Amino acid sequence: MSGRSLLICLPLALALLTPVESPAQADLASLVDPMVGTKNMGHTFPGATVPFGMVQLSPDTRQLRMYDEEGRYVREAYRYCSGYQYEDSTITGFSHTHFSGTGHSDLGDISLMPVMGEVNLEGPFTSSFQHANEAAEPGYYTVHLDDPNIDVELTATTRVGRHRYTFNEDGPAHVVLDLRANIYDYDGKNVWTFVRVENDTLITGYRQTTGWARTRTVYFALAFDRPFSSYGHRRFDETPYAGFYRRFDQENDFPEMAGRELRARFTFNVEAGQQLQAKVALSGVSTAGALKNLMAEAPGWDFDLTRLAARSQWNEELGRIKVDMRTEEQLSTFYTALYHTMLGPTVYEDVDGQYRGLDQNVHTSDGFTNYTVFSLWDTYRALHPLFNLIQRPRNNDMILSMLAHFDQSVHPMLPIWSHHANENWCMIGYHAVSVIADAAATGNLGFDLGRALEACVATSQVPYFDGVGELMELGYVPDEASRSSVSVTLELAYDDWCISQVAGWLGREERQAEYLERSRSFEHLFDPSIGFMRPKNRAGQWRPDFDTMATHGQGFIEGNAWNYSLYVPHDVPRLVELMGGPEAFGRHLDELFTMELGDEHIADTEDITRDGIIGNYVHGNEPGHHIAYLYNWSDRPWQTQKRVRMIMDTMYGTGVDGLCGNDDAGQMSAWYVLSALGFYPVCPGSGEYAIGSPLVERADVQLENGTVFQVRVEGQSEAAVYVQEVRVDGVKIERPVLDFQVMAGGNEVVFVMGLEPRR
Amino acid sequence: MSGRSLLICLPLALALLTPVESPAQADLASLVDPMVGTKNMGHTFPGATVPFGMVQLSPDTRQLRMYDEEGRYVREAYRYCSGYQYEDSTITGFSHTHFSGTGHSDLGDISLMPVMGEVNLEGPFTSSFQHANEAAEPGYYTVHLDDPNIDVELTATTRVGRHRYTFNEDGPAHVVLDLRANIYDYDGKNVWTFVRVENDTLITGYRQTTGWARTRTVYFALAFDRPFSSYGHRRFDETPYAGFYRRFDQENDFPEMAGRELRARFTFNVEAGQQLQAKVALSGVSTAGALKNLMAEAPGWDFDLTRLAARSQWNEELGRIKVDMRTEEQLSTFYTALYHTMLGPTVYEDVDGQYRGLDQNVHTSDGFTNYTVFSLWDTYRALHPLFNLIQRPRNNDMILSMLAHFDQSVHPMLPIWSHHANENWCMIGYHAVSVIADAAATGNLGFDLGRALEACVATSQVPYFDGVGELMELGYVPDEASRSSVSVTLELAYDDWCISQVAGWLGREERQAEYLERSRSFEHLFDPSIGFMRPKNRAGQWRPDFDTMATHGQGFIEGNAWNYSLYVPHDVPRLVELMGGPEAFGRHLDELFTMELGDEHIADTEDITRDGIIGNYVHGNEPGHHIAYLYNWSDRPWQTQKRVRMIMDTMYGTGVDGLCGNDDAGQMSAWYVLSALGFYPVCPGSGEYAIGSPLVERADVQLENGTVFQVRVEGQSEAAVYVQEVRVDGVKIERPVLDFQVMAGGNEVVFVMGLEPRR
Repeated sequence: MSGRSLLICLPLALALLTPVESPAQADLASLVDPMVGTKNMGHTFPGATVPFGMVQLSPDTRQLRMYDEEGRYVREAYRYCSGYQYEDSTITGFSHTHFSGTGHSDLGDISLMPVMGEVNLEGPFTSSFQHANEAAEPGYYTVHLDDPNIDVELTATTRVGRHRYTFNEDGPAHVVLDLRANIYDYDGKNVWTFVRVENDTLITGYRQTTGWARTRTVYFALAFDRPFSSYGHRRFDETPYAGFYRRFDQENDFPEMAGRELRARFTFNVEAGQQLQAKVALSGVSTAGALKNLMAEAPGWDFDLTRLAARSQWNEELGRIKVDMRTEEQLSTFYTALYHTMLGPTVYEDVDGQYRGLDQNVHTSDGFTNYTVFSLWDTYRALHPLFNLIQRPRNNDMILSMLAHFDQSVHPMLPIWSHHANENWCMIGYHAVSVIADAAATGNLGFDLGRALEACVATSQVPYFDGVGELMELGYVPDEASRSSVSVTLELAYDDWCISQVAGWLGREERQAEYLERSRSFEHLFDPSIGFMRPKNRAGQWRPDFDTMATHGQGFIEGNAWNYSLYVPHDVPRLVELMGGPEAFGRHLDELFTMELGDEHIADTEDITRDGIIGNYVHGNEPGHHIAYLYNWSDRPWQTQKRVRMIMDTMYGTGVDGLCGNDDAGQMSAWYVLSALGFYPVCPGSGEYAIGSPLVERADVQLENGTVFQVRVEGQSEAAVYVQEVRVDGVKIERPVLDFQVMAGGNEVVFVMGLEPRR
Repeated sequence: MSGRSLLICLPLALALLTPVESPAQADLASLVDPMVGTKNMGHTFPGATVPFGMVQLSPDTRQLRMYDEEGRYVREAYRYCSGYQYEDSTITGFSHTHFSGTGHSDLGDISLMPVMGEVNLEGPFTSSFQHANEAAEPGYYTVHLDDPNIDVELTATTRVGRHRYTFNEDGPAHVVLDLRANIYDYDGKNVWTFVRVENDTLITGYRQTTGWARTRTVYFALAFDRPFSSYGHRRFDETPYAGFYRRFDQENDFPEMAGRELRARFTFNVEAGQQLQAKVALSGVSTAGALKNLMAEAPGWDFDLTRLAARSQWNEELGRIKVDMRTEEQLSTFYTALYHTMLGPTVYEDVDGQYRGLDQNVHTSDGFTNYTVFSLWDTYRALHPLFNLIQRPRNNDMILSMLAHFDQSVHPMLPIWSHHANENWCMIGYHAVSVIADAAATGNLGFDLGRALEACVATSQVPYFDGVGELMELGYVPDEASRSSVSVTLELAYDDWCISQVAGWLGREERQAEYLERSRSFEHLFDPSIGFMRPKNRAGQWRPDFDTMATHGQGFIEGNAWNYSLYVPHDVPRLVELMGGPEAFGRHLDELFTMELGDEHIADTEDITRDGIIGNYVHGNEPGHHIAYLYNWSDRPWQTQKRVRMIMDTMYGTGVDGLCGNDDAGQMSAWYVLSALGFYPVCPGSGEYAIGSPLVERADVQLENGTVFQVRVEGQSEAAVYVQEVRVDGVKIERPVLDFQVMAGGNEVVFVMGLEPRR
C-alpha cells in the first residue's frame, strides 16, 4: 500500500482545536475546502454553516437582476445561484440563506454589510476584497473588506448566524440591514418587509419574497453585542400611503419600519481595533420563533466557542466515513465532497418544533425534525442513498418531512422540488417515491410505509401534473403534452417501479403489479428503427426530424437522446435487450464516451464547462450519473471501472474550479463519495449497488449503532483502475453488485485492483 | 304624556321572528334602518353583521382608485369609505370587512360576486340594481341584481358571512372571488394573495394588503353548499416567475393560486329558481383559524337560522336601552343610532382566542376577547362612555385589547387609531388614556389599573410622537413641530389630565400631580389679546397672520380656532375665566352658533354637508361635540338645552341621508343616544355627565346585574326643550350634572320640561 495514513498525517495542533468525543478523532474538517466549486458553474458557497443548517451565512459578491426591465431573463444571473462567484472582486453583503450547487436560485435573505463613514442608504454597499485575504473552513468564513477596512468573520449554529467585525479605523460605523438584497433579484421579487427595533441592541422582522418559492417568508431576530447610537431606514418602493405616516419623522430612530423595499442602518462609533458582533436567528414561523431560536442556540457572545462547536459538528459528520487515499488532493476532494453532501436538505423548524407548512399554516413536527430544500430530481440518485448509509435518522426525518408536505398538499402530492414551505415544480418526475423506496430497501423505516405508499400512489395519479393523465391513458406521455415527454415518461417509469417496490414490501400484490405494469411505459418510446428513445405523439407516430444529439426541443430535459435513452435504471436487462444485447449495448456506451461533440452541441448543454464532458457524456447533468456503471450489464464491465475512475480523476478536484458543473444540492458530490468507495446505486430502491472502481485505499463507513462497513482495497494505484476480484468477508462475489445487507452487516469488502481489465 | 308606548306599537308578527329570552321582549331591530347614513357623507354601510362582528358583509357599489396613476389622491374616493354610496346604481361585489362611518378607509376584503353566462376574469363584474329591490335590517341584507338576474341575501355570525343567491334563469353561473377588490384601492395596495382549492366545495386562502393598515392579512375559508363543476383563476400582476409554473396549466382546475392580483371563479350549472349558498369565515391568524371559525359558528346550511340568530343578538343589544319617544321617526333614529354604536370596535380573534398582534406574531387572549378598530380620537368622547353604561364587559375587553396592543408595541404606546394588528397613526392625541380614565371613573375595572397607568405614562412620554418631546420641554407643542400644534397641545392637556386621574384612583400622588401639571399646558396657547387659542413658536411668539375662522393651516385639525379654543374639557372653569367669565363665555358661544359662515369657510370644513353646520358650529367634526353642553358653565345654561335639541332635531333623522357627516365609528351616533337620554360626558374620566335636554319620554337603561337606570321626562313636547328641574329619586339637583353613581345605583331621574328657559 502506497497511501499514507490519514490519522498519521494530520498535524496534532488541528486535532486539539476540536473538542471531540474521542481525542483520537481526526480534525477531518481541515481537509475540507468550502471554496471548491465557487468558480464557474459549481454554484457552491464558501460561507459558514453547520451540517444541514437552516442558516447558511455566506458572502454575496454581486446583486444581479434575474430579469431586466423588460422582464427578460438575464443569463448572467445563472452564475450567481449561490450568491458568490469566485471571479468577482467585490462583496455586497453577508446573507443568511443560500442554496448549495443548485441549478436555479432564490434566497440570499437578511443581508448585513458593515460600512464606515457617511452612509447613504441609496447604496450600493460594495467592498472590494482579495482572495488572499479570505479563508473558508467548515463552519467559519473570514474576509478582509478593503474599502471600509473591516475584517469580517462568520460562523453559525443550526438556526443562528454570527458575525464578528473588526474595525481597523476610527469613525462612525454602520451595519446596513439590506432587505432589498436578493439572489435572483428582480422588480417585484420582494413582496413585503417588516422591521421592529425592539431595543437598542435587538431588531426583529421578516422579509417576504416571491420567485422560485412563490410565497416565502423569512423571519429574523438580529442582536448586536452593544447598543447602536442611532438608526434609520429608507423605503424604496413608491406605493402611496394614507399620509398619516408622514406626520412625524419615521425614517430616523423610529422603531417600526415596513414596506416592499427597505434598507436600514444601525450606527456605532468605533475605534480602530474594536470589534462588533451581530447574531441573526432565522425562523420560518414568526419573529417570536426567531427569538426563541436565538436564545436557545446563541445566548451569549462567545463567537469562538460557536466556531469550535460548528467545527466539532462537522468533524462528527465527516467522521462517518474514514478513508485512506493516495494523495492529499484526493483526501481533500473526498472530504470536501462529503461536506457538500451535508449542505442540504436543511432543517426547517424552530427549536420548539414549529414550522410553516406548504399550506402556509404553522405546524409542529411530532417525532421528527422538519427539513426543506428537496431538489429531488437530483438527489434521489445518490444523495439519499448515501444518507441511507451514513445519515439514516436524518433521511428518515426527511421522508417524514415529505409526508408532512404531502399531508399539507392540496393536490395532494409529495414534494417535487420544494423549499421553504413551497413547491416550485422544478424539473420532472415524482422522485420522492424513489427516496421512500430506497429507505424501504435499506430498512430505514422510521415512518409508516403504508401511509407512504398511499402518498406515493396519490402523487402518481394527479392527472394535470405534467402529462400524468395521458401517461395513465396511453401508457406514455405524448409529445404534445410536454416539452420533455420522453424524459418524463422514462423517469416516471422508474418512479412507478419504485412504487411497485414499496407495495411489494407491504405485500400489496395488486398494487405492486399495477405499478410494475406502469413501470414498463419506457418500452412505448423506444424506437427500434433508430435504437433510441424518441418522442411519440398522441396518434402513436414517432416525431419526424428527430435529432439524437440535441439537448433542447427533442423531448428531453438536461440530456439528449444518446444519454436519456439509457435511462431505464429499474430494468437494465430489458434495455440491453432492446438495444440489441450486451455487445451492441457496450458499443453504444463506448460510442457515447468517445464521440466528437460539435461546438453547437457543447453550447447546447447547460451549466457545464467543456471539462465536464467526455465525448457525448455530460457528467454535470444528472440523467447520465448511472451511465458509466451500465457497462456492468454489457460485455465489457471493466469499462465501468475505467470510466468511473476517469470521471473521478478529471471532473472532481481541489481548488475553486474543482467541480465540473453545478453540485446540484450535493448529488454530484454524493456521486463522488460513493464512487470513491467503489460502488454506486444505479437503481435506488433496489438495495443493490453496482461495483465500480474504488479510489480509496481503505474506508470505514459508520452506519448506525456502531456498525462499521469496511472497504479495503488491495493493489490500489493511479493506474490500477481495474477490479480483479471483490471479496465480501473473504468470499469472492460473482456479480458486480453489492447488496445493502453487506453494508448493514458491517462486513468487510475487499477490492483487488489491477492494471489490466479482468475479462 | 303624549308619547306612545313602544311595546304596544310593535306588530306581534315581528316579535315572533325573534327567539328571544322573554317572549314579551320587543323586536327593536325592526326600528333600525341600516340604510341611514349611506347617502352623502355618513359613510355607513347597509350590509349584514352581528353586534361588534368581525365579519361585516356588505355590498360595494364602486371600486374607486384612491390614487390615480401619478399617485395623486382621488378626492372622490372619500365618498366610498364604507364601500357603499347610495347614489350609485351598480354593485361590484359583496365583501366581508367594512368600517362604519370612518373618515378614512381600508378593508373591503374577500369580495364575492355572482355572475352568469360566459365569464371573463378581466372583469369588471358589476350589476345594476334598484333601491326598490333592496332591503336592509340588522343582520340581514338583500338585493336583486338586474344584470345577471340574481337575488342576493346576506347574513352573518361574528366571524362568518353567509350568502344565498337565487338564480332566476338557467345557465352557467359563477361565483367570482375577487381578491383584487379593495376599498381605497390603488396600485400596490394588494401585497399578496394565496388561494387553495381544498376540495370541490371548500376554498381557503388569504389576502395581504398595505395602506392605512400598513401590514395587514385577512385569512378566509369559503365553503359552497354544493360542488362547483370547474374553477379557474387569473393573475393580473406581471411579476416575472421562474417559468416552472408554466409547464402545465395552472389557470384552470389547478388548486393552488398565488400572486399579487388574483381573481378566481367557481362555476356551477344552475336552473331558474335554484339557490346556491356560500359561507365565508375570516381570521386574522391563519386559514386553519378561519376553518375553525367556520366550523364553530356556521357548521350547517340553515341560512334563515343564522339570520334569526343575528336578529336575536341585535335585539338583545338594542334592548339595553328601552325608550318611549314621541314619534316613530324619533324611535327609528334612536335605535338606528344605537345600532350604529355597535358596529365597532370589532372582535378580532378566532374562536380559540388566537389573534394576530401588533408585532405580527400570533397571541392568545387570556381572559378577554380581543377587539380591533379603535378610532379613538372619535370614540373616547361618547362611544366608550356609552359602553361604560351599557356594554361594560365589552368596554373592559376593549381596554384589555388596548393593553395587549401596548405590550406588543415597540414604542411602547397604547393605540392611537388601530385596526387589524396595525397602528395607522390617524389623527392626534393618545386618547386611549381617556378610555382607561373613564373606565376607572365608572368603576369598570376588570383590568389591572396599575398596569394601565404604566401604559398611559409610557405612551405619554414617547418623544418622537407628534411633538410630545417638545411638549414635555416647553410645556406646549410649538408651531414648528406640528401642523396641528394647538389641537395637539389641547388634546394632550386633556389626555394628561386623564392620566392624573388614573394616578389619583391608584393613590399615586406624585404621578397625579405631575400629570395635573402637564394638563395645564393649554394655558400656554391661550392668547388673551384675541381671546383664542393660537399657535406659538419655539421662541414663544404667537403666529402672525392668524385666521380664527380657517380650518386648515392654522395649527388645528378638523376645526378652527373658534371651535378648538373651547377644548379644555377637564377644566372648563379655567377656560371660562380665560375667556372673561361666564357672561363673555356665553356670548362667545352664542356668536359661534349664530355667526354667518362664508362660503370659503364652508368649503373648508371636511366631510360635512351644509346641513351639518349651525353658524360656525360644525357637528360633524368631533372637537365640537361637547360645545353645546358648555353653556352649562356660562350665564345661560338653557342655551345648552336649546342647542342640543336643535342638533338632535336637525342633524339626525331617518332616511339614507339621516346623518349630517361621517358617523365616525359610532361617535356621532353615541352623541345622539346620550343626548336623547338627557346628558353627555363633556369630560370622560370625570364620572360626570352634563345635563342637556332629553328627547325621550322615558328610558330604561340596563346596566349590569339587572340594574336599570330610569329616565322619566315630564312635559315632553317638540317645543318643550327647556329643563325646568331635574329630580334624582325625587330630590331636585342643584348643578346641571349627573354623577355616574346615579346611574350605577339604578336611580330614577326625572326631567321636568317647559316651553321657556328656567333662568
